[in-house]
Amino acid sequence: MIIHSLCCTLFHAIIVYRLPWTWKCSKLLMKSIHAGLNTVAAILAIVSLVAVFENRRARNLTNMYSLHSWIGLTAVILYVLQLVLGFCIFLLPWAPLSLRAIAMPIHVYSGLFLFGTVIATVLMGVTEKLTSPTTTPPYNSFSPEGIFTNTLSLLIVLYGALIFWIATRPQWKRPKEPDSSILQSKGGAGEEVEGTITMSLGDKSEAELNNEVAARKRNFGLDEASQRSTM
Amino acid sequence: MIIHSLCCTLFHAIIVYRLPWTWKCSKLLMKSIHAGLNTVAAILAIVSLVAVFENRRARNLTNMYSLHSWIGLTAVILYVLQLVLGFCIFLLPWAPLSLRAIAMPIHVYSGLFLFGTVIATVLMGVTEKLTSPTTTPPYNSFSPEGIFTNTLSLLIVLYGALIFWIATRPQWKRPKEPDSSILQSKGGAGEEVEGTITMSLGDKSEAELNNEVAARKRNFGLDEASQRSTM
Repeated sequence: MIIHSLCCTLFHAIIVYRLPWTWKCSKLLMKSIHAGLNTVAAILAIVSLVAVFENRRARNLTNMYSLHSWIGLTAVILYVLQLVLGFCIFLLPWAPLSLRAIAMPIHVYSGLFLFGTVIATVLMGVTEKLTSPTTTPPYNSFSPEGIFTNTLSLLIVLYGALIFWIATRPQWKRPKEPDSSILQSKGGAGEEVEGTITMSLGDKSEAELNNEVAARKRNFGLDEASQRSTM
Repeated sequence: MIIHSLCCTLFHAIIVYRLPWTWKCSKLLMKSIHAGLNTVAAILAIVSLVAVFENRRARNLTNMYSLHSWIGLTAVILYVLQLVLGFCIFLLPWAPLSLRAIAMPIHVYSGLFLFGTVIATVLMGVTEKLTSPTTTPPYNSFSPEGIFTNTLSLLIVLYGALIFWIATRPQWKRPKEPDSSILQSKGGAGEEVEGTITMSLGDKSEAELNNEVAARKRNFGLDEASQRSTM
Protein backbone atom coordinates (compact mmCIF):
# COMPACT_ATOMS: atom_id res chain seq x y z
CA MET A 1 0.00 0.00 0.00
CA ILE A 2 2.80 2.38 0.98
CA ILE A 3 4.80 1.38 -2.10
CA HIS A 4 1.74 2.01 -4.26
CA SER A 5 1.23 5.44 -2.70
CA LEU A 6 4.93 6.14 -3.19
CA CYS A 7 4.76 5.22 -6.87
CA CYS A 8 1.62 7.28 -7.48
CA THR A 9 3.00 10.33 -5.70
CA LEU A 10 6.31 10.03 -7.53
CA PHE A 11 4.52 9.67 -10.88
CA HIS A 12 2.42 12.77 -10.28
CA ALA A 13 5.44 14.76 -9.10
CA ILE A 14 7.24 13.96 -12.37
CA ILE A 15 4.47 15.11 -14.71
CA VAL A 16 3.28 18.11 -12.70
CA TYR A 17 4.84 20.61 -15.16
CA ARG A 18 3.40 18.70 -18.12
CA LEU A 19 -0.29 19.31 -17.50
CA PRO A 20 -1.33 22.17 -19.87
CA TRP A 21 -3.88 23.54 -17.38
CA THR A 22 -1.02 24.20 -14.92
CA TRP A 23 0.85 26.44 -17.40
CA LYS A 24 -1.31 29.35 -16.19
CA CYS A 25 -0.06 28.84 -12.61
CA SER A 26 3.03 30.67 -11.40
CA LYS A 27 6.41 28.96 -11.68
CA LEU A 28 7.02 29.14 -7.94
CA LEU A 29 3.69 27.47 -7.18
CA MET A 30 4.46 24.61 -9.58
CA LYS A 31 7.96 24.19 -8.17
CA SER A 32 6.47 24.03 -4.66
CA ILE A 33 3.91 21.40 -5.72
CA HIS A 34 6.68 19.37 -7.43
CA ALA A 35 8.87 19.57 -4.32
CA GLY A 36 5.91 18.90 -1.99
CA LEU A 37 4.78 15.75 -3.81
CA ASN A 38 8.36 14.47 -3.92
CA THR A 39 8.71 15.13 -0.18
CA VAL A 40 5.53 13.10 0.49
CA ALA A 41 6.93 10.28 -1.68
CA ALA A 42 10.28 10.37 0.15
CA ILE A 43 8.54 10.20 3.57
CA LEU A 44 6.43 7.23 2.38
CA ALA A 45 9.58 5.52 1.08
CA ILE A 46 11.36 5.95 4.42
CA VAL A 47 8.30 4.75 6.40
CA SER A 48 8.05 1.65 4.17
CA LEU A 49 11.77 0.95 4.56
CA VAL A 50 11.54 1.15 8.37
CA ALA A 51 8.52 -1.21 8.27
CA VAL A 52 10.47 -3.71 6.12
CA PHE A 53 13.54 -3.67 8.38
CA GLU A 54 11.37 -4.00 11.53
CA ASN A 55 9.45 -6.89 9.99
CA ARG A 56 12.64 -8.72 8.99
CA ARG A 57 14.20 -8.12 12.42
CA ALA A 58 11.13 -9.65 14.12
CA ARG A 59 11.45 -12.73 11.88
CA ASN A 60 15.24 -13.00 12.34
CA LEU A 61 15.94 -12.65 8.62
CA THR A 62 19.24 -11.41 7.20
CA ASN A 63 19.00 -7.92 5.68
CA MET A 64 20.36 -6.41 2.49
CA TYR A 65 21.61 -9.50 0.67
CA SER A 66 19.20 -9.46 -2.30
CA LEU A 67 19.52 -7.49 -5.53
CA HIS A 68 16.06 -5.99 -4.80
CA SER A 69 17.36 -4.57 -1.52
CA TRP A 70 20.65 -3.31 -2.99
CA ILE A 71 18.99 -1.45 -5.86
CA GLY A 72 15.93 -0.40 -3.81
CA LEU A 73 17.95 1.13 -0.94
CA THR A 74 20.34 2.84 -3.38
CA ALA A 75 17.33 4.30 -5.21
CA VAL A 76 15.79 5.65 -1.99
CA ILE A 77 19.11 7.21 -0.85
CA LEU A 78 19.66 8.82 -4.27
CA TYR A 79 16.03 9.95 -4.29
CA VAL A 80 16.44 11.77 -0.96
CA LEU A 81 19.71 13.26 -2.27
CA GLN A 82 17.91 14.40 -5.43
CA LEU A 83 15.20 15.99 -3.28
CA VAL A 84 17.67 17.86 -1.03
CA LEU A 85 19.84 19.03 -3.93
CA GLY A 86 16.74 20.00 -5.93
CA PHE A 87 15.46 22.06 -3.01
CA CYS A 88 18.82 23.81 -2.50
CA ILE A 89 19.45 24.50 -6.20
CA PHE A 90 16.02 25.21 -7.68
CA LEU A 91 13.80 26.38 -4.82
CA LEU A 92 16.09 28.48 -2.62
CA PRO A 93 16.14 31.92 -4.28
CA TRP A 94 19.83 32.60 -3.57
CA ALA A 95 21.19 29.63 -5.58
CA PRO A 96 23.56 30.82 -8.35
CA LEU A 97 21.79 30.84 -11.71
CA SER A 98 24.78 29.36 -13.51
CA LEU A 99 24.57 26.39 -11.14
CA ARG A 100 20.85 25.98 -11.97
CA ALA A 101 21.66 25.92 -15.69
CA ILE A 102 24.28 23.20 -15.19
CA ALA A 103 22.17 21.17 -12.75
CA MET A 104 18.85 21.19 -14.66
CA PRO A 105 19.59 18.47 -17.29
CA ILE A 106 21.18 16.29 -14.58
CA HIS A 107 18.16 16.84 -12.30
CA VAL A 108 15.66 15.89 -15.05
CA TYR A 109 17.70 12.86 -16.13
CA SER A 110 18.21 11.64 -12.55
CA GLY A 111 14.51 12.01 -11.76
CA LEU A 112 13.45 9.94 -14.75
CA PHE A 113 16.21 7.39 -14.20
CA LEU A 114 15.28 6.98 -10.52
CA PHE A 115 11.65 6.57 -11.55
CA GLY A 116 12.66 3.72 -13.92
CA THR A 117 14.80 2.20 -11.17
CA VAL A 118 11.85 2.28 -8.75
CA ILE A 119 9.71 0.37 -11.27
CA ALA A 120 12.52 -2.19 -11.78
CA THR A 121 12.81 -2.54 -7.98
CA VAL A 122 9.05 -3.18 -7.67
CA LEU A 123 9.30 -5.89 -10.38
CA MET A 124 12.26 -7.51 -8.60
CA GLY A 125 10.43 -7.36 -5.26
CA VAL A 126 7.40 -9.08 -6.77
CA THR A 127 9.62 -11.75 -8.37
CA GLU A 128 11.54 -12.29 -5.12
CA LYS A 129 8.35 -12.61 -3.07
CA LEU A 130 6.74 -15.06 -5.48
CA THR A 131 9.81 -17.26 -5.99
CA SER A 132 10.73 -17.36 -2.29
CA PRO A 133 10.90 -20.97 -0.94
CA THR A 134 8.59 -19.96 1.92
CA THR A 135 5.80 -18.81 -0.43
CA THR A 136 2.77 -21.10 -0.57
CA PRO A 137 1.64 -22.45 -2.97
CA PRO A 138 5.10 -23.05 -4.51
CA TYR A 139 5.67 -20.78 -7.49
CA ASN A 140 6.17 -23.33 -10.26
CA SER A 141 2.95 -23.14 -12.24
CA PHE A 142 0.05 -20.81 -12.99
CA SER A 143 -1.14 -20.16 -9.43
CA PRO A 144 -3.96 -17.56 -9.18
CA GLU A 145 -1.75 -15.40 -6.90
CA GLY A 146 1.01 -15.49 -9.51
CA ILE A 147 -1.29 -14.51 -12.38
CA PHE A 148 -2.87 -11.72 -10.32
CA THR A 149 0.53 -10.32 -9.28
CA ASN A 150 1.99 -10.61 -12.79
CA THR A 151 -1.01 -8.75 -14.23
CA LEU A 152 -0.71 -6.03 -11.59
CA SER A 153 3.02 -5.70 -12.35
CA LEU A 154 2.33 -5.44 -16.09
CA LEU A 155 -0.12 -2.63 -15.35
CA ILE A 156 2.62 -0.85 -13.34
CA VAL A 157 4.95 -1.17 -16.35
CA LEU A 158 2.26 0.22 -18.68
CA TYR A 159 1.56 3.07 -16.27
CA GLY A 160 5.29 3.79 -16.15
CA ALA A 161 5.41 3.78 -19.98
CA LEU A 162 2.62 6.37 -20.05
CA ILE A 163 4.40 8.62 -17.54
CA PHE A 164 7.67 8.36 -19.51
CA TRP A 165 5.76 9.31 -22.68
CA ILE A 166 4.15 12.34 -21.04
CA ALA A 167 7.43 13.41 -19.41
CA THR A 168 9.41 13.35 -22.67
CA ARG A 169 7.01 14.92 -25.24
CA PRO A 170 8.27 18.37 -26.33
CA GLN A 171 4.70 19.59 -27.02
CA TRP A 172 3.76 19.10 -23.35
CA LYS A 173 6.73 21.04 -22.07
CA ARG A 174 5.75 24.08 -20.00
CA PRO A 175 6.14 27.16 -22.26
CA LYS A 176 9.01 29.54 -21.55
CA GLU A 177 8.26 32.50 -19.30
CA PRO A 178 7.42 35.30 -21.80
CA ASP A 179 10.21 37.66 -20.69
CA SER A 180 12.91 35.07 -20.27
CA SER A 181 13.98 35.14 -23.92
CA ILE A 182 14.33 38.95 -23.80
CA LEU A 183 16.41 38.72 -20.66
CA GLN A 184 18.32 35.89 -22.25
CA SER A 185 19.28 37.94 -25.29
CA LYS A 186 20.22 40.91 -23.09
CA GLY A 187 22.13 39.04 -20.44
CA GLY A 188 23.86 36.29 -22.41
CA ALA A 189 24.27 32.65 -21.43
CA GLY A 190 23.03 31.73 -17.99
CA GLU A 191 22.56 35.36 -16.94
CA GLU A 192 18.78 35.40 -16.87
CA VAL A 193 17.67 36.57 -13.44
CA GLU A 194 14.50 34.82 -12.40
CA GLY A 195 13.59 37.46 -9.83
CA THR A 196 13.40 40.17 -12.50
CA ILE A 197 10.75 38.40 -14.57
CA THR A 198 7.76 40.59 -13.86
CA MET A 199 5.17 39.12 -16.22
CA SER A 200 4.47 35.51 -15.27
CA LEU A 201 2.20 33.05 -17.05
CA GLY A 202 -0.29 33.71 -14.28
CA ASP A 203 -0.80 37.21 -15.69
CA LYS A 204 -1.72 36.00 -19.17
CA SER A 205 -5.34 35.77 -20.19
CA GLU A 206 -6.73 32.31 -20.90
CA ALA A 207 -7.27 33.17 -24.58
CA GLU A 208 -3.62 34.21 -24.97
CA LEU A 209 -2.44 30.99 -23.39
CA ASN A 210 -4.77 28.86 -25.51
CA ASN A 211 -3.45 30.58 -28.64
CA GLU A 212 0.10 29.86 -27.53
CA VAL A 213 -0.71 26.20 -26.90
CA ALA A 214 -2.39 25.86 -30.31
CA ALA A 215 0.57 27.57 -32.00
CA ARG A 216 3.01 25.23 -30.28
CA LYS A 217 0.98 22.23 -31.43
CA ARG A 218 1.04 23.49 -35.04
CA ASN A 219 4.73 24.34 -34.93
CA PHE A 220 5.57 21.03 -33.40
CA GLY A 221 4.74 19.24 -36.65
CA LEU A 222 7.32 21.40 -38.43
CA ASP A 223 9.99 20.91 -35.78
CA GLU A 224 9.40 17.20 -35.74
CA ALA A 225 9.70 16.92 -39.51
CA SER A 226 12.87 19.01 -39.63
CA GLN A 227 14.47 16.94 -36.89
CA ARG A 228 13.66 13.74 -38.70
CA SER A 229 16.79 13.79 -40.80
CA THR A 230 18.99 13.85 -37.71
CA MET A 231 17.62 10.65 -36.16
CA MET B 1 26.48 -15.16 -22.63
CA ILE B 2 23.84 -14.76 -25.33
CA ILE B 3 21.88 -12.32 -23.16
CA HIS B 4 25.07 -10.34 -22.56
CA SER B 5 25.78 -10.21 -26.30
CA LEU B 6 22.19 -9.17 -26.89
CA CYS B 7 22.45 -6.33 -24.39
CA CYS B 8 25.77 -5.09 -25.78
CA THR B 9 24.52 -5.18 -29.37
CA LEU B 10 21.30 -3.45 -28.41
CA PHE B 11 23.22 -0.77 -26.48
CA HIS B 12 25.50 -0.05 -29.41
CA ALA B 13 22.58 0.03 -31.85
CA ILE B 14 20.89 2.71 -29.72
CA ILE B 15 23.83 5.10 -29.54
CA VAL B 16 25.15 4.60 -33.07
CA TYR B 17 23.89 8.04 -34.22
CA ARG B 18 25.32 9.69 -31.11
CA LEU B 19 29.02 9.15 -31.79
CA PRO B 20 30.36 12.46 -33.20
CA TRP B 21 32.89 10.68 -35.43
CA THR B 22 29.99 9.02 -37.27
CA TRP B 23 28.40 12.39 -38.20
CA LYS B 24 30.69 12.47 -41.26
CA CYS B 25 29.26 9.17 -42.50
CA SER B 26 26.26 9.14 -44.81
CA LYS B 27 22.77 8.86 -43.30
CA LEU B 28 22.01 5.67 -45.22
CA LEU B 29 25.18 3.99 -43.93
CA MET B 30 24.31 4.88 -40.33
CA LYS B 31 20.72 3.70 -40.76
CA SER B 32 22.04 0.40 -42.15
CA ILE B 33 24.45 -0.05 -39.22
CA HIS B 34 21.61 0.76 -36.77
CA ALA B 35 19.32 -1.76 -38.47
CA GLY B 36 22.10 -4.35 -38.81
CA LEU B 37 23.08 -4.25 -35.13
CA ASN B 38 19.43 -4.48 -34.10
CA THR B 39 18.96 -7.47 -36.41
CA VAL B 40 21.94 -9.23 -34.79
CA ALA B 41 20.44 -8.47 -31.34
CA ALA B 42 17.03 -9.83 -32.43
CA ILE B 43 18.59 -13.06 -33.75
CA LEU B 44 20.53 -13.50 -30.48
CA ALA B 45 17.32 -12.90 -28.52
CA ILE B 46 15.44 -15.53 -30.52
CA VAL B 47 18.30 -18.07 -30.22
CA SER B 48 18.43 -17.51 -26.45
CA LEU B 49 14.63 -17.91 -26.18
CA VAL B 50 14.72 -21.22 -28.09
CA ALA B 51 17.54 -22.41 -25.80
CA VAL B 52 15.52 -21.50 -22.69
CA PHE B 53 12.36 -23.26 -23.92
CA GLU B 54 14.36 -26.38 -24.96
CA ASN B 55 16.11 -26.48 -21.60
CA ARG B 56 12.85 -26.19 -19.67
CA ARG B 57 11.18 -28.85 -21.85
CA ALA B 58 14.05 -31.28 -21.13
CA ARG B 59 13.60 -30.66 -17.37
CA ASN B 60 9.77 -30.91 -17.55
CA LEU B 61 9.27 -27.40 -16.17
CA THR B 62 6.14 -25.33 -16.78
CA ASN B 63 6.73 -22.39 -19.15
CA MET B 64 5.62 -18.79 -19.08
CA TYR B 65 4.23 -18.49 -15.55
CA SER B 66 6.78 -16.02 -14.13
CA LEU B 67 6.76 -12.23 -14.40
CA HIS B 68 10.28 -12.44 -15.91
CA SER B 69 8.93 -14.62 -18.73
CA TRP B 70 5.82 -12.48 -19.32
CA ILE B 71 7.74 -9.23 -19.58
CA GLY B 72 10.77 -10.78 -21.31
CA LEU B 73 8.75 -12.50 -24.07
CA THR B 74 6.61 -9.37 -24.58
CA ALA B 75 9.80 -7.30 -24.90
CA VAL B 76 11.29 -9.67 -27.51
CA ILE B 77 8.04 -9.72 -29.55
CA LEU B 78 7.78 -5.91 -29.43
CA TYR B 79 11.48 -5.63 -30.27
CA VAL B 80 11.04 -7.74 -33.43
CA LEU B 81 7.96 -5.67 -34.30
CA GLN B 82 9.98 -2.47 -33.78
CA LEU B 83 12.70 -3.85 -36.06
CA VAL B 84 10.27 -4.82 -38.85
CA LEU B 85 8.33 -1.55 -38.65
CA GLY B 86 11.58 0.44 -38.46
CA PHE B 87 12.87 -1.31 -41.58
CA CYS B 88 9.64 -0.72 -43.51
CA ILE B 89 9.21 2.92 -42.44
CA PHE B 90 12.76 4.31 -42.25
CA LEU B 91 14.92 2.13 -44.50
CA LEU B 92 12.71 1.30 -47.48
CA PRO B 93 13.01 4.34 -49.78
CA TRP B 94 9.35 4.28 -50.87
CA ALA B 95 7.85 4.82 -47.38
CA PRO B 96 5.70 8.00 -47.28
CA LEU B 97 7.62 10.87 -45.65
CA SER B 98 4.59 12.02 -43.67
CA LEU B 99 4.48 8.53 -42.11
CA ARG B 100 8.18 8.82 -41.19
CA ALA B 101 7.54 12.15 -39.47
CA ILE B 102 4.71 10.65 -37.40
CA ALA B 103 6.56 7.43 -36.61
CA MET B 104 9.96 8.89 -35.60
CA PRO B 105 9.11 10.03 -32.03
CA ILE B 106 7.25 6.75 -31.40
CA HIS B 107 10.21 4.75 -32.80
CA VAL B 108 12.75 6.59 -30.59
CA TYR B 109 10.55 6.32 -27.49
CA SER B 110 9.79 2.62 -28.07
CA GLY B 111 13.47 1.81 -28.60
CA LEU B 112 14.52 3.43 -25.34
CA PHE B 113 11.55 2.00 -23.45
CA LEU B 114 12.28 -1.52 -24.73
CA PHE B 115 15.91 -1.07 -23.74
CA GLY B 116 14.80 -0.19 -20.18
CA THR B 117 12.43 -3.17 -20.19
CA VAL B 118 15.27 -5.50 -21.23
CA ILE B 119 17.37 -4.29 -18.28
CA ALA B 120 14.40 -4.80 -15.90
CA THR B 121 13.92 -8.31 -17.36
CA VAL B 122 17.60 -9.14 -16.75
CA LEU B 123 17.27 -7.98 -13.12
CA MET B 124 14.11 -10.06 -12.64
CA GLY B 125 15.81 -13.09 -14.23
CA VAL B 126 18.76 -12.76 -11.87
CA THR B 127 16.42 -12.40 -8.86
CA GLU B 128 14.32 -15.40 -9.97
CA LYS B 129 17.37 -17.58 -10.49
CA LEU B 130 18.92 -16.68 -7.13
CA THR B 131 15.71 -17.01 -5.08
CA SER B 132 14.62 -20.27 -6.73
CA PRO B 133 14.13 -23.10 -4.16
CA THR B 134 16.38 -25.35 -6.27
CA THR B 135 19.35 -22.96 -6.06
CA THR B 136 22.21 -24.10 -3.84
CA PRO B 137 23.34 -22.68 -1.48
CA PRO B 138 19.90 -21.33 -0.40
CA TYR B 139 19.62 -17.60 -1.06
CA ASN B 140 19.05 -16.26 2.43
CA SER B 141 22.37 -14.67 3.31
CA PHE B 142 25.48 -13.16 1.74
CA SER B 143 26.56 -16.11 -0.44
CA PRO B 144 29.54 -15.36 -2.72
CA GLU B 145 27.39 -16.23 -5.78
CA GLY B 146 24.76 -13.73 -4.64
CA ILE B 147 27.26 -10.91 -4.08
CA PHE B 148 28.95 -11.59 -7.44
CA THR B 149 25.61 -11.61 -9.31
CA ASN B 150 24.31 -8.53 -7.50
CA THR B 151 27.50 -6.63 -8.34
CA LEU B 152 27.28 -7.71 -11.99
CA SER B 153 23.62 -6.59 -12.10
CA LEU B 154 24.50 -3.22 -10.58
CA LEU B 155 27.13 -2.77 -13.30
CA ILE B 156 24.45 -3.55 -15.93
CA VAL B 157 22.22 -0.84 -14.37
CA LEU B 158 25.12 1.66 -14.41
CA TYR B 159 25.92 0.77 -18.02
CA GLY B 160 22.25 1.27 -18.87
CA ALA B 161 22.30 4.66 -17.10
CA LEU B 162 25.27 5.70 -19.24
CA ILE B 163 23.56 4.63 -22.47
CA PHE B 164 20.37 6.52 -21.49
CA TRP B 165 22.49 9.61 -20.78
CA ILE B 166 24.24 9.41 -24.17
CA ALA B 167 20.98 8.71 -26.01
CA THR B 168 19.15 11.71 -24.55
CA ARG B 169 21.76 14.53 -24.65
CA PRO B 170 20.81 17.16 -27.25
CA GLN B 171 24.48 18.08 -27.87
CA TRP B 172 25.23 14.54 -29.08
CA LYS B 173 22.35 14.49 -31.52
CA ARG B 174 23.45 13.97 -35.12
CA PRO B 175 23.37 17.40 -36.85
CA LYS B 176 20.64 18.06 -39.41
CA GLU B 177 21.48 17.34 -43.04
CA PRO B 178 22.60 20.80 -44.36
CA ASP B 179 19.93 21.09 -47.07
CA SER B 180 17.04 19.72 -45.09
CA SER B 181 16.14 23.06 -43.50
CA ILE B 182 16.03 24.75 -46.93
CA LEU B 183 13.79 22.00 -48.25
CA GLN B 184 11.79 22.23 -45.08
CA SER B 185 11.06 25.94 -45.53
CA LYS B 186 10.21 25.41 -49.22
CA GLY B 187 8.07 22.31 -48.82
CA GLY B 188 6.27 22.94 -45.53
CA ALA B 189 5.62 20.42 -42.74
CA GLY B 190 6.61 16.87 -43.50
CA GLU B 191 7.18 17.55 -47.19
CA GLU B 192 10.96 17.31 -47.17
CA VAL B 193 11.98 14.78 -49.82
CA GLU B 194 14.99 12.83 -48.67
CA GLY B 195 15.93 11.72 -52.17
CA THR B 196 16.50 15.31 -53.28
CA ILE B 197 19.11 16.08 -50.62
CA THR B 198 22.26 16.18 -52.69
CA MET B 199 24.83 17.41 -50.16
CA SER B 200 25.23 14.89 -47.36
CA LEU B 201 27.40 15.22 -44.27
CA GLY B 202 29.79 12.83 -46.02
CA ASP B 203 30.63 15.65 -48.45
CA LYS B 204 31.65 18.09 -45.72
CA SER B 205 35.29 18.61 -44.87
CA GLU B 206 36.46 17.56 -41.43
CA ALA B 207 37.24 21.18 -40.49
CA GLU B 208 33.71 22.28 -41.38
CA LEU B 209 32.22 19.51 -39.30
CA ASN B 210 34.48 20.24 -36.34
CA ASN B 211 33.46 23.90 -36.48
CA GLU B 212 29.82 22.86 -36.49
CA VAL B 213 30.33 20.57 -33.50
CA ALA B 214 32.15 23.33 -31.57
CA ALA B 215 29.39 25.82 -32.43
CA ARG B 216 26.72 23.41 -31.24
CA LYS B 217 28.58 22.92 -27.97
CA ARG B 218 28.79 26.70 -27.44
CA ASN B 219 25.15 27.26 -28.39
CA PHE B 220 24.01 24.46 -26.17
CA GLY B 221 24.83 26.51 -23.06
CA LEU B 222 22.49 29.23 -24.31
CA ASP B 223 19.70 26.81 -25.21
CA GLU B 224 20.00 25.08 -21.89
CA ALA B 225 19.83 28.35 -19.96
CA SER B 226 16.81 29.59 -21.91
CA GLN B 227 14.98 26.30 -21.37
CA ARG B 228 15.61 26.46 -17.64
CA SER B 229 12.58 28.59 -16.91
CA THR B 230 10.27 26.01 -18.49
CA MET B 231 11.31 23.12 -16.26
